Amino acid sequence: MTAALTATAVDRVRTHVLPAMQAAVARLDPASRAAASYHLGWTEADGSPRRDGAGKGIRPLLALLSAELAGAAPEVAVPGAVAVELVHNFSLLHDDVMDGDEERRHRRTVWALWGESCAILTGDAMLGLAAEVLLEADSPHAAAATRELMVATRELVRGQVEDLSFESRTGVGLEECLRMADGKTGALLAASSCIGALLAGAPAEVVDALREHGRHLGAAFQLVDDLLGIWGDPAVTGKAVLADLRARKKSLPVTFVLCGGGAAGEELAAWYARERPAGGDPEDVLQRVAGLVEDGGGRAWATRAAEEHLRAAEAALDRVSLAPGPRAELSDVARYLTRRES
Amino acid sequence: MTAALTATAVDRVRTHVLPAMQAAVARLDPASRAAASYHLGWTEADGSPRRDGAGKGIRPLLALLSAELAGAAPEVAVPGAVAVELVHNFSLLHDDVMDGDEERRHRRTVWALWGESCAILTGDAMLGLAAEVLLEADSPHAAAATRELMVATRELVRGQVEDLSFESRTGVGLEECLRMADGKTGALLAASSCIGALLAGAPAEVVDALREHGRHLGAAFQLVDDLLGIWGDPAVTGKAVLADLRARKKSLPVTFVLCGGGAAGEELAAWYARERPAGGDPEDVLQRVAGLVEDGGGRAWATRAAEEHLRAAEAALDRVSLAPGPRAELSDVARYLTRRES
Repeated sequence: MTAALTATAVDRVRTHVLPAMQAAVARLDPASRAAASYHLGWTEADGSPRRDGAGKGIRPLLALLSAELAGAAPEVAVPGAVAVELVHNFSLLHDDVMDGDEERRHRRTVWALWGESCAILTGDAMLGLAAEVLLEADSPHAAAATRELMVATRELVRGQVEDLSFESRTGVGLEECLRMADGKTGALLAASSCIGALLAGAPAEVVDALREHGRHLGAAFQLVDDLLGIWGDPAVTGKAVLADLRARKKSLPVTFVLCGGGAAGEELAAWYARERPAGGDPEDVLQRVAGLVEDGGGRAWATRAAEEHLRAAEAALDRVSLAPGPRAELSDVARYLTRRES
Repeated sequence: MTAALTATAVDRVRTHVLPAMQAAVARLDPASRAAASYHLGWTEADGSPRRDGAGKGIRPLLALLSAELAGAAPEVAVPGAVAVELVHNFSLLHDDVMDGDEERRHRRTVWALWGESCAILTGDAMLGLAAEVLLEADSPHAAAATRELMVATRELVRGQVEDLSFESRTGVGLEECLRMADGKTGALLAASSCIGALLAGAPAEVVDALREHGRHLGAAFQLVDDLLGIWGDPAVTGKAVLADLRARKKSLPVTFVLCGGGAAGEELAAWYARERPAGGDPEDVLQRVAGLVEDGGGRAWATRAAEEHLRAAEAALDRVSLAPGPRAELSDVARYLTRRES
């Protein structure tokens, strides 16, 4: 059922948002346009068209629903949907450069194909384009929506700054990590979840409730993503088994155990402190490390925290009056996002 | 006289714009704030305050004048002045990464001090902040002003994309080069020159005239900059003698000669095609190359073209009715910008 809903949702984004997104990207200079089209999954590296390649478009979908929740037509939200997707992809392009990631979703990254300058400039162009397109929205609230998105962008940058700084530090606290994830994931989901309502001129309390919903949804999403990064089924996630441990990533469940101390925490800390063997850690070691995260309570904590955020996300919506159809659809999307193993 | 005017102008920017600029930068996360403050010349690398370090602030000055030309108080333009300066500095931070420049105005660049990621993220944060601050302007035209600036940012990116692509090409035409300079320099000067009038709600023909003025001013400025890059007095420019030839840069006067052919053009092309000797070209060779650019008509062409753009910039202003005091001041600023050897 969730899968069927998602097919409809993906269709909605494709019908409403994709043409506007393509028209926006067409404004870019030829090199940035080519890199953006490849990155967005519309073309292959040689420029030839690619079928069914675009991403899930969760943020545009939230933007569309957000207008409908406020009783407006989804069309009202289209410039917002385009803008949040552009900002999301600007950040992916730049993150890939900074993280040195040569692959994303089984495809070479833009910087790996065409160099860092191309990825930097394409990202820059997409960020500016997001504001440009959103400011052209036929809404007296376009400026407020754009400001909302730019504040979220500042939070997004803050999250990435913190993420990079944590890599060179030991003893990073759980609170710091949660705040970082709130910047990297929560801020843009929050903006996506209220931008359609903003454009529709919804009352402040509706906008606030939707923003809060998105913020909690982002937190839940990140926790689930981190759980899948350790215990996810590779056939579903598209990542290697134990991917985050393989990459020695200190995700949220790991940080919980590291900060909690105890025998599992100390053994886990010792493993992270050890030099990574050439060719990576063998799988039996990674399985043992996953066991430590589980023994230290990291898995149970992250599962519970994700559920709590999902409940808080629902509770935010309960405070205001929203169109019932879209409201049910949003709950389905939220459940889909946070139970992606199903 | 020009110098005295500039002292007043710099004071005006310092009084009106600097506090708002500092308040804006204070919103950034600590790492981006520190890097931005250093880059903007407010602090040393260790974070200690730096006196009289800020740049000339030509773009904010144009923004302030632009409001006054439309009969408004300069205060109206302050969010625009802050925003154009933020966009300018976002582009410098990213350009330094892409160009691999370790120094700017005799100081280490941000990426050279703190790494590429820091420079990329600080630039990203400043671009978003520009739109954020501008959208908070107390003007019904804030959205239009922000859109103007974002379109200019797209042009700025286009210019840098072209600039980088020209480095790996031979046979770049003069028209292409002029279009590249129009993106890299003209677009943001055009936006700076009209943004105050936009915020002040000036009639479209006034905004158009000021934009056109800024565009021509940008073209003239770039031509003069290129002339100074070859024939400028190091004591005035702060660059080495024959700096652009030393760096084998194909600036506009050089491109004119390369495209013009003839004996000078051919000898010049042969020099650019030759491997650069270890330790750089000796000064007598560079003097000879400067002679070729002069013999090929590059110096005379660039001088004449700069004068024509300056005249066209004035002519654009003649089309509309503008406040006479600010109009005289703008002409002085334009002359200062394009006769910087005096």
